[in-house]
Amino acid sequence: MESPLKKAAAQGRDFLTEHEAYDFIASLGIDVPKHELIADTDALEKRLAAISKEYSSRVVLKIASPDIHHKAEIGGVAIVDNDPETLRSKFAEMLASAKNARPEARIDGVLLMEMVEIEQELILSLIDDATFGHVLSIGKGGTLTEIFKDIALHPAPVASGDIEKMLRSLKTWPLLEGYRGAKGADIGAIAAFAEKIAALARKNGDSPLGDFEIAEFEINPLVTTKDGRVLPIDSILRFREAKKIEAESAHPNLTNLDKLFKPQTIAVVGASDTPQKMGGAILGLLKEKSAARIFPINPKKDELMGLKTYKSIGEVPEAVDLAVLAVPAKFTPDVVRDCAAAGVKAAIIISAGFGEMGAEGKKIEQRMRKVAREAGMRLIGPNCMGIYYEPTSLSTFFLDPDKTEIPHREVNNFTVLSQSGAVCVQMVELTGNVGTRAIVSYGNMIDIDVADLAAYFNDDEGSDAIGIYIEGLKNGARFLAAAKKMTKPTIIIKGGKSRAGGAATVGHTGAIAGDYDVAKAVFKATGLIEAETLQEFADYCKVFSFLTGRPVAGRRIAVVTNAGGLGVLSADMAEKIGLEVAQFEDKTIKAIGKLTGGLVLTSNPTDLTAGVTAQDFTRAAALLLEDANVDGVVLIPGIQPHQMNSRTIVEELIALYRRYNKPMVVTITPTEKRIPLFDELEAARLPHFDTPEQAVRALGAYLKHFAPRQRLEAIGK
Amino acid sequence: MESPLKKAAAQGRDFLTEHEAYDFIASLGIDVPKHELIADTDALEKRLAAISKEYSSRVVLKIASPDIHHKAEIGGVAIVDNDPETLRSKFAEMLASAKNARPEARIDGVLLMEMVEIEQELILSLIDDATFGHVLSIGKGGTLTEIFKDIALHPAPVASGDIEKMLRSLKTWPLLEGYRGAKGADIGAIAAFAEKIAALARKNGDSPLGDFEIAEFEINPLVTTKDGRVLPIDSILRFREAKKIEAESAHPNLTNLDKLFKPQTIAVVGASDTPQKMGGAILGLLKEKSAARIFPINPKKDELMGLKTYKSIGEVPEAVDLAVLAVPAKFTPDVVRDCAAAGVKAAIIISAGFGEMGAEGKKIEQRMRKVAREAGMRLIGPNCMGIYYEPTSLSTFFLDPDKTEIPHREVNNFTVLSQSGAVCVQMVELTGNVGTRAIVSYGNMIDIDVADLAAYFNDDEGSDAIGIYIEGLKNGARFLAAAKKMTKPTIIIKGGKSRAGGAATVGHTGAIAGDYDVAKAVFKATGLIEAETLQEFADYCKVFSFLTGRPVAGRRIAVVTNAGGLGVLSADMAEKIGLEVAQFEDKTIKAIGKLTGGLVLTSNPTDLTAGVTAQDFTRAAALLLEDANVDGVVLIPGIQPHQMNSRTIVEELIALYRRYNKPMVVTITPTEKRIPLFDELEAARLPHFDTPEQAVRALGAYLKHFAPRQRLEAIGK
Repeated sequence: MESPLKKAAAQGRDFLTEHEAYDFIASLGIDVPKHELIADTDALEKRLAAISKEYSSRVVLKIASPDIHHKAEIGGVAIVDNDPETLRSKFAEMLASAKNARPEARIDGVLLMEMVEIEQELILSLIDDATFGHVLSIGKGGTLTEIFKDIALHPAPVASGDIEKMLRSLKTWPLLEGYRGAKGADIGAIAAFAEKIAALARKNGDSPLGDFEIAEFEINPLVTTKDGRVLPIDSILRFREAKKIEAESAHPNLTNLDKLFKPQTIAVVGASDTPQKMGGAILGLLKEKSAARIFPINPKKDELMGLKTYKSIGEVPEAVDLAVLAVPAKFTPDVVRDCAAAGVKAAIIISAGFGEMGAEGKKIEQRMRKVAREAGMRLIGPNCMGIYYEPTSLSTFFLDPDKTEIPHREVNNFTVLSQSGAVCVQMVELTGNVGTRAIVSYGNMIDIDVADLAAYFNDDEGSDAIGIYIEGLKNGARFLAAAKKMTKPTIIIKGGKSRAGGAATVGHTGAIAGDYDVAKAVFKATGLIEAETLQEFADYCKVFSFLTGRPVAGRRIAVVTNAGGLGVLSADMAEKIGLEVAQFEDKTIKAIGKLTGGLVLTSNPTDLTAGVTAQDFTRAAALLLEDANVDGVVLIPGIQPHQMNSRTIVEELIALYRRYNKPMVVTITPTEKRIPLFDELEAARLPHFDTPEQAVRALGAYLKHFAPRQRLEAIGK
Repeated sequence: MESPLKKAAAQGRDFLTEHEAYDFIASLGIDVPKHELIADTDALEKRLAAISKEYSSRVVLKIASPDIHHKAEIGGVAIVDNDPETLRSKFAEMLASAKNARPEARIDGVLLMEMVEIEQELILSLIDDATFGHVLSIGKGGTLTEIFKDIALHPAPVASGDIEKMLRSLKTWPLLEGYRGAKGADIGAIAAFAEKIAALARKNGDSPLGDFEIAEFEINPLVTTKDGRVLPIDSILRFREAKKIEAESAHPNLTNLDKLFKPQTIAVVGASDTPQKMGGAILGLLKEKSAARIFPINPKKDELMGLKTYKSIGEVPEAVDLAVLAVPAKFTPDVVRDCAAAGVKAAIIISAGFGEMGAEGKKIEQRMRKVAREAGMRLIGPNCMGIYYEPTSLSTFFLDPDKTEIPHREVNNFTVLSQSGAVCVQMVELTGNVGTRAIVSYGNMIDIDVADLAAYFNDDEGSDAIGIYIEGLKNGARFLAAAKKMTKPTIIIKGGKSRAGGAATVGHTGAIAGDYDVAKAVFKATGLIEAETLQEFADYCKVFSFLTGRPVAGRRIAVVTNAGGLGVLSADMAEKIGLEVAQFEDKTIKAIGKLTGGLVLTSNPTDLTAGVTAQDFTRAAALLLEDANVDGVVLIPGIQPHQMNSRTIVEELIALYRRYNKPMVVTITPTEKRIPLFDELEAARLPHFDTPEQAVRALGAYLKHFAPRQRLEAIGK
């Protein structure tokens, strides 16, 4: 299979010519247009008789040269009648005109191809994204490709069935399927074609092309023909020598992560007794809460906060599981070296002032990483706030307790992993009633990265929902490997959504798919739940944490309200995010009618009007929860007139939540006076949202993630 | 101009045939393809010689019949060589095949047309939307029209320049402009064409077509040709007799609205002394706060809450400006009659149970409306919570004061008009720190509607920002007239975004443009600011209320933060909504560098890192505010470590806000402990938002609305 690549490489090229590409594609077992390279006039003469028999009445001629890329511009493409006279004259004319236009070009001859009748045009490509590696792209071809950007991306290689899902996600899917009575394309054949191209991607770090790997392979157009074939009509194939990828780096590394979260012994380097200093705040937090043995390190002190203090890490009489480094940036590399020498298992580098400041800082990071790796010590940070882990009461989060406290609840099952410390703090506040199990601010990721942490917390039994904030990724392959294995609902938000291209491409795909598009495709393909804004991120984390374990049968919701307008806005959001508004069973319609004495039209949303009492509101909600056509309920006792007692409605809703195991969410118009009531609802783990749209969107994320058989397709919406 | 319509109407048709439509279009002064209707073989023979001279080498033949719509299906369309022999044979064949396929059809002959070389296909139409009347639509034509729905809508007729703006808003605008070196279309010619079609729309209620009006006129395709012409190639034109529209109903009616908001005398019908009853709550509110003279009406009482009480409205000894009706639905029509008879100027019908319950309720509403109209009495409601008007301390909002209070602030300049009472309450809470000037819950709109109210509050001097919630509209023309005249920033949210079509159309446009699309186009064309969710609605209302009067030079923002991640998310949102991230002046970059001692990279967002003090944060913000390239600033002292004193940062930010007159917004990570600080910021009218994306989106709405020269285009993003 490598031969065309080898041959091109031997000629000093990193790309295939069009006829080489056809031969390469054909070698993959894929149908290509009938074609032949005709080197010169003699060769043409020998084939003329056969050509008139073997090809139909019109054929395509293209100049064949590795040095001429825009063939049409120099008259190097023609559709001509398949008769000897025409072929002879056009052949000669094309060669002459090419030699004239590009005297320096090597001309291999003329490529003669069958003329096909095109029905639909697609664009298919395999690009090598700088972060995530090989990514397959397929979409609508033709002039509008770049304008509508109707392409689907998927990390490659792909599993069987993925391509059809990609095609179905296109806006132009109806065209492929057969629009307004037109004949559809052969989806199976397109998928088989694309799967073979996707199989050229690196797999476990190795290229199936041996010494070479694909840099970019764009087939544009890939066409379906009137006679039902699927054919490449032109392509770009660039390749390079296969990169050596360390097998270890492509997989999450869990070594010593237990020492980070469950240390028996902790050293605080740069410890202080001043709570306003980082080293003082952290020492105070650890001393107060952690059950581990704490060793402050400070060359100028013998004792800090009543703890014996050591001049250096080397002096600590016990094996140190975890070292927390709260020393200025300039001293940090030396301390890392000392820790490594002392056999420390894991270290947190809090200080900033490294890679985020430029090239010099990046070099220092590399050196620290090397020292740690050689000693088998794991590093987290630098430029981070460290970790909070509820089961071991471990926290390095040097927050001002007058401003922010990490909440401790009856159930603490929510974990947040964030590149940004500020986002950690924001999440603590926005999800105030959700019990937090772990927070990791992982900063510059010189060693332990988000993939390691995601894998660790996927195995951590008490973490039921995981929220991840990422900006850049240093190792996309490792992230992809971790994401594929996540079995817990994982909510992700990406900061830095610039469209700057992640793959250096010659073809069109690069102009269509930027960094963020590829990241989005990775999230979707691996079932991660993407949030668009911090508020959504917090809302999704809350709903997955609270509703943990509630089974999902589908995506049909019911809305019950005493406030018409809020019901209407709920239905709008449901439609927008692809939920269904449930059709009630007859028995439900009758029962609601009976309950309201016929004063209310039973529809969905069910508007019980402002006159309803708390008891009747809950009775109606129970009827909807018992309806087999309803998969989740949005409860909106939005306004509360005199007859709806606030305390009663809260108690009724909590009882309802305990009685029915279906997913449900609540919205009550927020007021300062009602916040304590919302806290009560949420103490019972019934999620409350300030607006109906938030409630519907959050419930929708939960239903779509768990809805049977549609899980992966669902994530797209 | 009417003749083709008259002729068709005389034949019992409500549509034009293709050749009639060409003649009609030509009569508007628009170029159409050269064409002629050839009635029979004799006529053809007479024209053959001329045809071969006057047309080019190929021509189009189409069967001409008012009874055959899908011509191609019966072989009724052909492109043939322009030679007598071919024309003769094809002509005969086409007539025969049509007669054979549709023996009952009237055949007018064959339409012969010039063959044009098409470059681009558009679709242009004038539809008659059920709510808003005539709407012009233009967009990309061809097979992908319905799939990508790339069309722009605008209420018709249009002003000069509108069409180009519509074309520029299309995703396919680059194609029209000339994509990748291709020749662009003649935009001026397309616009001139479309403007003539738009001029067929009703204007001030009258149709320019006299006795007829357009029901639907779709030109599909409208093409640009290789030789630079803009031509209709096929069209649907349906017409009807012109509707008689009452001139008064197409314009907002302000009669007696002053009596509603500034009454000297108020009667409460259904008054009670029980605060838990509606009539008791309302009487209590009015008695406590209003300066008007209050007359309770209750046939069973002589006195209520210390006020002399009358048996009926007729017994009140003074002229009553405003009557508030808090009686059950079944008694309401009689009370309306009594009020009308007593010369009441305006009445609020609180009760529900009318049109929202079905046809019977709608009839009752119509009768009440008639009674009121005849007496010159204005009605608001039914099914509403009435009004709150701060300048006259007037309120009928029967809210439980233990749950919700309408806030009164130093400046009260925000007005909300809502079809839904619940949305009024929600807005009061979500914009808690914004001083409310007026709230109107207008309910079923049987008389006073949202257009009347919008026009009234546009003239109300103290209302600086107006928020509107609408579901349905009974009179779209009146709304459009009011919206066009709004000079104050008007934020709108639409409940009920179903895509069900608003215009009954035969063509493609109806499949593309639903009710909500038309409403969106109306909002955009009239400069209303649309919010997608209740939270956005509240945020926009807040930002326009607080920032009132701050001048806008452009849409370039600066973000200053001490929390990198929150800055990154801000920039993402800025890009998403079409704001520019400002390029700082050199002096700013130098000054920030000096301030931070070079420890921070000066970029935008400007991340001062967690170590910054409140004073330095504000100093940096001041430098950005002084930069001539910055039009608005997002202040994100997101996290607050020890050294950033909460009190100091709040005081510093307020001072900054008073010192610089540029628009600015703040985000600080929310905590229960910080809410009082946010209240302080907002008491100084500096808008605070819980998340960076909300802050950027709200500031963006303000900048885009007021940014010079781009105002209307800007609203789209």
